[in-house]
Amino acid sequence: MFVQRAMRQASKVQNVLGSSTSKYSAKVLSSRFYSSTTLAPLDASKLEINQSKNQKPLQENSQLLFGKAFTDNMLTIEWEAGKGWGTPQIKEYGKLHLDPSAVVFHYAFECFEGMKAYKDKDGKTRLFRPDMNMKRFNRSAQRIALPSFEDEELTKLISEFLKVDDRWIPKGRGYSLYLRPTMIGTQESLGVGASNKAMIFVIASPVGPYFPSGFNAVNLLATSDKVRAWPGGTGDAKVGGNYAPCIKPQLDANKEGFQQNLWLFGPDHQVTEVGTMNCFVFWKNEKGERELITPELDGSILPGVTRDSILSLTRSWGEFKVSERKFTMKDLVQADKEGRIIEMFGAGTACIVCPIKKIHYDGHDIHVPLDPTDKTSQAGKLTKRINDSIMDIQYGDVEGPKGWSVVV
Amino acid sequence: MFVQRAMRQASKVQNVLGSSTSKYSAKVLSSRFYSSTTLAPLDASKLEINQSKNQKPLQENSQLLFGKAFTDNMLTIEWEAGKGWGTPQIKEYGKLHLDPSAVVFHYAFECFEGMKAYKDKDGKTRLFRPDMNMKRFNRSAQRIALPSFEDEELTKLISEFLKVDDRWIPKGRGYSLYLRPTMIGTQESLGVGASNKAMIFVIASPVGPYFPSGFNAVNLLATSDKVRAWPGGTGDAKVGGNYAPCIKPQLDANKEGFQQNLWLFGPDHQVTEVGTMNCFVFWKNEKGERELITPELDGSILPGVTRDSILSLTRSWGEFKVSERKFTMKDLVQADKEGRIIEMFGAGTACIVCPIKKIHYDGHDIHVPLDPTDKTSQAGKLTKRINDSIMDIQYGDVEGPKGWSVVV
Repeated sequence: MFVQRAMRQASKVQNVLGSSTSKYSAKVLSSRFYSSTTLAPLDASKLEINQSKNQKPLQENSQLLFGKAFTDNMLTIEWEAGKGWGTPQIKEYGKLHLDPSAVVFHYAFECFEGMKAYKDKDGKTRLFRPDMNMKRFNRSAQRIALPSFEDEELTKLISEFLKVDDRWIPKGRGYSLYLRPTMIGTQESLGVGASNKAMIFVIASPVGPYFPSGFNAVNLLATSDKVRAWPGGTGDAKVGGNYAPCIKPQLDANKEGFQQNLWLFGPDHQVTEVGTMNCFVFWKNEKGERELITPELDGSILPGVTRDSILSLTRSWGEFKVSERKFTMKDLVQADKEGRIIEMFGAGTACIVCPIKKIHYDGHDIHVPLDPTDKTSQAGKLTKRINDSIMDIQYGDVEGPKGWSVVV
Repeated sequence: MFVQRAMRQASKVQNVLGSSTSKYSAKVLSSRFYSSTTLAPLDASKLEINQSKNQKPLQENSQLLFGKAFTDNMLTIEWEAGKGWGTPQIKEYGKLHLDPSAVVFHYAFECFEGMKAYKDKDGKTRLFRPDMNMKRFNRSAQRIALPSFEDEELTKLISEFLKVDDRWIPKGRGYSLYLRPTMIGTQESLGVGASNKAMIFVIASPVGPYFPSGFNAVNLLATSDKVRAWPGGTGDAKVGGNYAPCIKPQLDANKEGFQQNLWLFGPDHQVTEVGTMNCFVFWKNEKGERELITPELDGSILPGVTRDSILSLTRSWGEFKVSERKFTMKDLVQADKEGRIIEMFGAGTACIVCPIKKIHYDGHDIHVPLDPTDKTSQAGKLTKRINDSIMDIQYGDVEGPKGWSVVV
């Protein structure tokens, strides 16, 4: 039986490797192959469905709030050291029963993903680049010594979950079912070491557009006294520990009238991220070239799916330079003085893009242009075009690059 | 009723301020005073006790493992935004029932303390500097936007908890009841902001000596590619997010035969902490003076209770210089070459002191002396003396400074 499992595992590894493009995944898979040939892999074919007998009432689209209401069911899979992954289960959404000594409560053994399911015009359900989320989820788990899993099996399970809770996927452009795959360490012991038990759960919440009545550009407070991430830390992993420490600086910024922090790093005040989003600047650079820039993935920056999609898309347009490189507040201040900033925006799954109109830094304001041809507009032309282009693909109205919009 | 509460709160604040010595606590208390005059404070007099009817069998002292078995009961107190702290409860130890959307699972809204209760020779129960733990617990909570609480009220509640589970406090030098006060954010919504619900729980586990058969000095791997903490981060707070990211580097070190990481920071490889402990070096410094040094509290170093106690104690001896200041691996390598390192140890609640015998750094080994007068010894003379002095106070055999050993 172990031999069969090992062979099934080996063939699965080859399949996945064959379709893999990331430099990370080969490493993830080879370590998984060597370490778990006698452990149960995550296997979607073992799924057990015991769905809720109660159907909670749906909300009107106009009533939807981010992450407040959840669907009738949830997906759970438990893992145990020495055994591997257990039986995946779709069952009624409900409380987790955990020992107070569970290490998730003490040492932040937790990582997650954010992704959305969309209804297209034919009523089919689509995911946007789920392979990217699954690969990052695996990398996040490995960074905090939680178990790795078979990427494609979890995508299959999420697809089954979406079928069971299909009625919860709201229809209409801008509406979607937000999915929150989460992995937690559940070892019942306070020793500080790798968790001997873990659990993946996936919950889902119907959501509306981030900006329900059109874009609303944000004011940022450039923040350098508190730091979101550091080389050698976990800034490039989607682990829980990255988030709670950013709330106090966010509340402090809110008190002063700013919606988000612009996170800076280092003595030269490198621009890193905006709140929980990646940061993009569209400007005329020092050489007078039109350029879209975002900080490079140096280990402190979250490799956002939206970030990657924006880079791919704008590179495919070939209309301006697209760069991943460091830039500093000094660069931005200089560009502002010389009138070279065209637009700025944050990027993430929740909003796709979030236009920026002002940055408070070192006692001064940088006023970022929105759309100079339309005084009432709250977003620049490129910002809007990127938003529309990505939405077109997410909702299946336009065929994007291969594998971006996946019908489940 | 709100007025009464406000007055009670105000008088409580004055009482605590009167006895406060920390520069932090005034700030904590004043913000609490202004923000919560209409919110219920944490009030030990409201305690409800519904203790377990089942008495689990006790383990032999020789069988005790750190943080594996827990007492019959636990202490819980819930908090809600706009209301404040609810009724403290001592009830049967058991699972927490939490919604899968609870923010503790996603954004690491969690902080904790580690402290011990000791039985003295008269059978009385003693805590060691509980005021230090409570103040740090409050500061940790504030760093991640969790609610603050009345320090002394929680100490009173923990004292009551110790009375209820008295039979679980093991007798004998080196044995104690490890207490784990924990605060988690329990808001049931995925929005990234301050949690609108929280909970303190305290669980307790009987433990034996960290080194059951005498000291066992450790080998360290000096680690600079992964970083434990950084300026503007949370290294000085006891938050969950500091821990999970350190496990993979620890496992990597274990594979190479080292017990712990020596965490370095910055391009000059400053020495910061050892595993989850503060780091001390006893050496002849560059000027030829005998000096005990530990990194200064620059915001990245955990302000350990044991650390502070060692500094106070050795300063009171007046036998050698005691310094809190930065030092680097270059300093240590130079001291090693010149034979100036006398001893090195980690310090924390679990072990008190943990002797260090070797550090692997940059391809070379630094061999740290233990006791040159006793080849079989696994700890230096100062290390042993500090350990014994602190234990004497913890177990009430010697009267320490005022407020260090508190009979509950």
